[in-house]
Amino acid sequence: MTTTNPVPTPTATPPDILRCAYMDIVVTDLARSREFYVDILGLVVTEESDTEIYLRPFEEFIHHNLVLRLGPIAAVAAMAFRVRSPEDVDRAEAYYQELGCRTERRPNGFVKGIGDSVRVEDPLGFPYEFFFSTEHVERLAWRYDLQGPGALVRLDHFNQVTPDVGRGRTYLEDLGFRVTEDIQDSDGVTYAAWMRRKDTVHDTALTGGNGPRMHHIAFSTHEKHNIIYICDKLGALRKSDLIERGPGRHGVSNAFYLYLRDPDGHRVEIYTQDYYTGDPDNPVVTWDVHDNQRRDWWGNPVVPSWYTDASLVLDLDGNPQPVVAREEPSEMAVTVGADGFSYTRQDDTEHGFKLGHTL
Amino acid sequence: MTTTNPVPTPTATPPDILRCAYMDIVVTDLARSREFYVDILGLVVTEESDTEIYLRPFEEFIHHNLVLRLGPIAAVAAMAFRVRSPEDVDRAEAYYQELGCRTERRPNGFVKGIGDSVRVEDPLGFPYEFFFSTEHVERLAWRYDLQGPGALVRLDHFNQVTPDVGRGRTYLEDLGFRVTEDIQDSDGVTYAAWMRRKDTVHDTALTGGNGPRMHHIAFSTHEKHNIIYICDKLGALRKSDLIERGPGRHGVSNAFYLYLRDPDGHRVEIYTQDYYTGDPDNPVVTWDVHDNQRRDWWGNPVVPSWYTDASLVLDLDGNPQPVVAREEPSEMAVTVGADGFSYTRQDDTEHGFKLGHTL
Amino acid sequence: MTTTNPVPTPTATPPDILRCAYMDIVVTDLARSREFYVDILGLVVTEESDTEIYLRPFEEFIHHNLVLRLGPIAAVAAMAFRVRSPEDVDRAEAYYQELGCRTERRPNGFVKGIGDSVRVEDPLGFPYEFFFSTEHVERLAWRYDLQGPGALVRLDHFNQVTPDVGRGRTYLEDLGFRVTEDIQDSDGVTYAAWMRRKDTVHDTALTGGNGPRMHHIAFSTHEKHNIIYICDKLGALRKSDLIERGPGRHGVSNAFYLYLRDPDGHRVEIYTQDYYTGDPDNPVVTWDVHDNQRRDWWGNPVVPSWYTDASLVLDLDGNPQPVVAREEPSEMAVTVGADGFSYTRQDDTEHGFKLGHTL
Amino acid sequence: MTTTNPVPTPTATPPDILRCAYMDIVVTDLARSREFYVDILGLVVTEESDTEIYLRPFEEFIHHNLVLRLGPIAAVAAMAFRVRSPEDVDRAEAYYQELGCRTERRPNGFVKGIGDSVRVEDPLGFPYEFFFSTEHVERLAWRYDLQGPGALVRLDHFNQVTPDVGRGRTYLEDLGFRVTEDIQDSDGVTYAAWMRRKDTVHDTALTGGNGPRMHHIAFSTHEKHNIIYICDKLGALRKSDLIERGPGRHGVSNAFYLYLRDPDGHRVEIYTQDYYTGDPDNPVVTWDVHDNQRRDWWGNPVVPSWYTDASLVLDLDGNPQPVVAREEPSEMAVTVGADGFSYTRQDDTEHGFKLGHTL
Repeated sequence: MTTTNPVPTPTATPPDILRCAYMDIVVTDLARSREFYVDILGLVVTEESDTEIYLRPFEEFIHHNLVLRLGPIAAVAAMAFRVRSPEDVDRAEAYYQELGCRTERRPNGFVKGIGDSVRVEDPLGFPYEFFFSTEHVERLAWRYDLQGPGALVRLDHFNQVTPDVGRGRTYLEDLGFRVTEDIQDSDGVTYAAWMRRKDTVHDTALTGGNGPRMHHIAFSTHEKHNIIYICDKLGALRKSDLIERGPGRHGVSNAFYLYLRDPDGHRVEIYTQDYYTGDPDNPVVTWDVHDNQRRDWWGNPVVPSWYTDASLVLDLDGNPQPVVAREEPSEMAVTVGADGFSYTRQDDTEHGFKLGHTL
Repeated sequence: MTTTNPVPTPTATPPDILRCAYMDIVVTDLARSREFYVDILGLVVTEESDTEIYLRPFEEFIHHNLVLRLGPIAAVAAMAFRVRSPEDVDRAEAYYQELGCRTERRPNGFVKGIGDSVRVEDPLGFPYEFFFSTEHVERLAWRYDLQGPGALVRLDHFNQVTPDVGRGRTYLEDLGFRVTEDIQDSDGVTYAAWMRRKDTVHDTALTGGNGPRMHHIAFSTHEKHNIIYICDKLGALRKSDLIERGPGRHGVSNAFYLYLRDPDGHRVEIYTQDYYTGDPDNPVVTWDVHDNQRRDWWGNPVVPSWYTDASLVLDLDGNPQPVVAREEPSEMAVTVGADGFSYTRQDDTEHGFKLGHTL
Repeated sequence: MTTTNPVPTPTATPPDILRCAYMDIVVTDLARSREFYVDILGLVVTEESDTEIYLRPFEEFIHHNLVLRLGPIAAVAAMAFRVRSPEDVDRAEAYYQELGCRTERRPNGFVKGIGDSVRVEDPLGFPYEFFFSTEHVERLAWRYDLQGPGALVRLDHFNQVTPDVGRGRTYLEDLGFRVTEDIQDSDGVTYAAWMRRKDTVHDTALTGGNGPRMHHIAFSTHEKHNIIYICDKLGALRKSDLIERGPGRHGVSNAFYLYLRDPDGHRVEIYTQDYYTGDPDNPVVTWDVHDNQRRDWWGNPVVPSWYTDASLVLDLDGNPQPVVAREEPSEMAVTVGADGFSYTRQDDTEHGFKLGHTL
Repeated sequence: MTTTNPVPTPTATPPDILRCAYMDIVVTDLARSREFYVDILGLVVTEESDTEIYLRPFEEFIHHNLVLRLGPIAAVAAMAFRVRSPEDVDRAEAYYQELGCRTERRPNGFVKGIGDSVRVEDPLGFPYEFFFSTEHVERLAWRYDLQGPGALVRLDHFNQVTPDVGRGRTYLEDLGFRVTEDIQDSDGVTYAAWMRRKDTVHDTALTGGNGPRMHHIAFSTHEKHNIIYICDKLGALRKSDLIERGPGRHGVSNAFYLYLRDPDGHRVEIYTQDYYTGDPDNPVVTWDVHDNQRRDWWGNPVVPSWYTDASLVLDLDGNPQPVVAREEPSEMAVTVGADGFSYTRQDDTEHGFKLGHTL
């Protein structure tokens, strides 16, 4: 599949990105969002005001991994990556300027706890931010007295919806990301790709669809029972309708997962136990889009909303980016229901009750 | 809701039933069934021949909890309960004779490892067996070297499909069972009832539907991760289509569960962590049939096959019992899809994406 | 080994005991005890006053399983068992009166939430209580929003120190208890015995030593990680010195365990995952006192305090019962240190670093 | 504390080390070692001969993480690190040559599955190896059908005993390692230091003691119950005397741990759940040597053998390196028993039964 409009490769050196670091999201009712992220999920409040809440999981030592910001329309204001040094912020600015992207540099940071940073409207339309300087806060890893049964311990990754995954993938590879896994079909269409900087399966992933939109932000727990507890607690609170999909085991990444929807519909994944990917020759795993175990290793169905819904992202003026339709085939269409097709065993003509009947 | 044809209460003393003890099921391909129950689920083979396999989980000390018997049609030959003493076998025989049921007594047992027993065609059409005498085998509780990551440790319960749950419940209460939980609607229709002898939520349950049929047999694990592993293993073996429903958390019983289908379609539940019920005034929990968390505490959908499919049961000649249609409303019909109705929060008019849209 | 002073077998019918139900313990600083049992262990407060706190774990529906009572000397005021019916309280009273024991009947109960009860000074010197009538409270099994990561879900058992285990065992067998496991040597000395009414390994155990004293009370969790969390939390609170022994796996009972000491030195066990014992012919497991895996399946050492320390018990006037020395050999002496002897493999002359060197 | 004989800082660029990659250990009975590492611990055999076995855990994709090599004396032949590129092998060779260390380069590798490598006798006397080229093998992360209940999924780290930790730490920092945690006293003596390249707490650690010796090699599991299972299995096999210390929770690293001894006495740690350390300003945690929770968060005692025993290491001719005594205070001496001193709460004069009495 040829991308018609490739992002050019800059001559500038890309910034040395450490990891996905925080997301700045706009919510329409701060109290309801606080209930979800603090009271239910148990994220730690680093600081808060009437309009912003800064949150982190228990093993984090930088100021925050999530900002909830009160605003008129639910959307994502920034997806921020931490870079290795102050000079890498300069590199990021120069890199995107060479790409012709709009950039904005703020030596004192866009949000509390973060210093010199640059935000950009990237070639895919996402509001990326790069920073090194940040306030350190207490790493609460040893504070078991504060940790609940569903304790979130780390920010794991972002996931972005973009129409042309191949185009986005090349752009992110130029920026220094490495692909760990992807989903393709036999025609070479890429439906999704997982890209990493730190030694896990991803810091961000590209999901094919109408975009730019934010698909989800993921926090990790230590063990699987922590994720099950979150479901149990939601049941106890009579909020089980916040569970969108799972819990289950991913084929891609081999991680155990759960997808929730926050009060504004922003999707949050709870995730645990993928594998080490830090070697430069780490083997890439390609999944067939028709493999019914790719998205859920147990073959449990993906609900349609998981494919169709995602959050708007903002430009640097705070206006929603227009959403462009995906032109390549949709993963949902080619795999779900009467028109789609999936298999549990390749070339097995026996189709059990799980395929095309559970949805 | 009045049962029109109640089972009379005998004057005879009922047998003192200890617990559900074993199921004798007919399978059509013994090698395929052995692969499922032994190679995949890891049940321990007490003994086997070309036509029968006797199986037990790791903490059992009686000869078996499951017999796989080669036969022409997949069905259940017997659902056996252990009684407290040899005299209780006599009591069982007399009790069913007074009810006018066909009974058959075999002093040397119907199957290997079991002594003096009586089988009956009970008032609901099920092939119940009662025995005390049995060979002891090694309790492999301490044999961690033999136990896999999904180790099944106990037989937990049976589940039977019967058209008139109220009628069946009264019959089983007369026999000495106690109801722990049930599902009803505001008209007094009972959709299912859980009945116990040992100190757990059930030894058997009655599920409203066309019957007599066997809904499932359940084995328990120690922890939830054991159940998750079984799913992961099925994925690795490319047999995820054997997973029918779950894993999940039940509302009823509060247990963590998974439903599988064996190669003949017999349903097997893997189950863990319900609660103690041994006090005579143990509180009965009644669930509203419209409560979307009753069957799955997380509100995940029940697949239609779980409601509709079940195994035939045999009479004492080995012929399938005719299946009688349920006349009362069907739980699936009143709760699933466009016609049905479920709620996450009673009186909440907001219906999320989970209700009526996930199926 | 002959017991020189056996407890006679009454002609009266013993009460039908359901299970161990609650312990009434005297503590010397109610605020410190509340911190331990409520703030750290997370037991649920049913009600409390300036002098008493009534506690239960999450799956209990009777009023309490533990009473903390302010008093001048740390001791046990009562070890209470629930019986099957009101008449069984009468039976208990008659049974102990025939034994010549002092009894006291209170139709309105000795403590809040409990009705008609009888307390006795039993033949071993313990303050046993028997009751049926009790207030029901909410079973919080489904209230995951209230349950912490170390949630205690049930009272599991008591453990009593008595000089002559054989004598105590016969007395408890007459009372209706059944032995599930014991520890003996080749001379026939019994060092400990586990006795059950409900379907678990024990409702109470007899530990050989100077007595009558209370060795511990045990609550259970659902999974092993819940117990590990309790240790982690104690570490976070800089109270790790409350951990006396474990966590570990018992040989006897096959359960996963942890022993804590409350602020008065009362020992509390956290326990999970023993096996079903409800059949009358449940196999008894006898362990050799020299088997180094009997108390800890991993061969980790038993700290001396676990053998030597225990709580005083009170008579019906509230005075401590005098402690009588054990005359038979001490388990600690025959197994620990330079004088004692334990083996990992019977008849293996190779003694690794774990035996006689770890203590 | 001043190191009298510091390792000079080379002018050469150090190799870019990815991670600890494999250890090559000499064992005296290959069949017994195979039983330990393969039958009991379940490591995967990549290939084997009469004199060598190449092993890996389930998530590894390089040829092996452990070589068992038959030889006359139990020792460590090499501790190998993977570097980022073929050129980094050249850099390693030049780096150590500048340090005046003996080096040996083998373009076809020292062992099967590894290509161009250099082995060195490093300034601390350890046989370090550096390589990039390696055969890829199947990453068995998704092969749950092969994974047992104690499945080891990754190599986590090495641990080395050296007399002067400060000297070793500076040398390893020059080589590119970063300290994540250490143990010191108020006089500035360093007792141990943890050093990382990949994003975990360590790739290797320096433990103060007579050296050079190898303290342990550590493999990780996904969850804590996997480690508990290994203990349970050793109990079932009557090999509990292979458990040296634990399981427990480390203070340092916050990981859950278990120490075993292989048939030659080589120490193996099983380890899970430390934290992300990949940021350049990752906070260093310094523990007081008198803090009784530093080595075990629950205050459980460290057995003396854990402090005193370690494996010899070989020079490039295969002869054991002479062991040099530590001159600084010994951690065991300053913390254990009558002469040593540890606290649970700093400045708390109350010393419970755990301190100085449990050993």
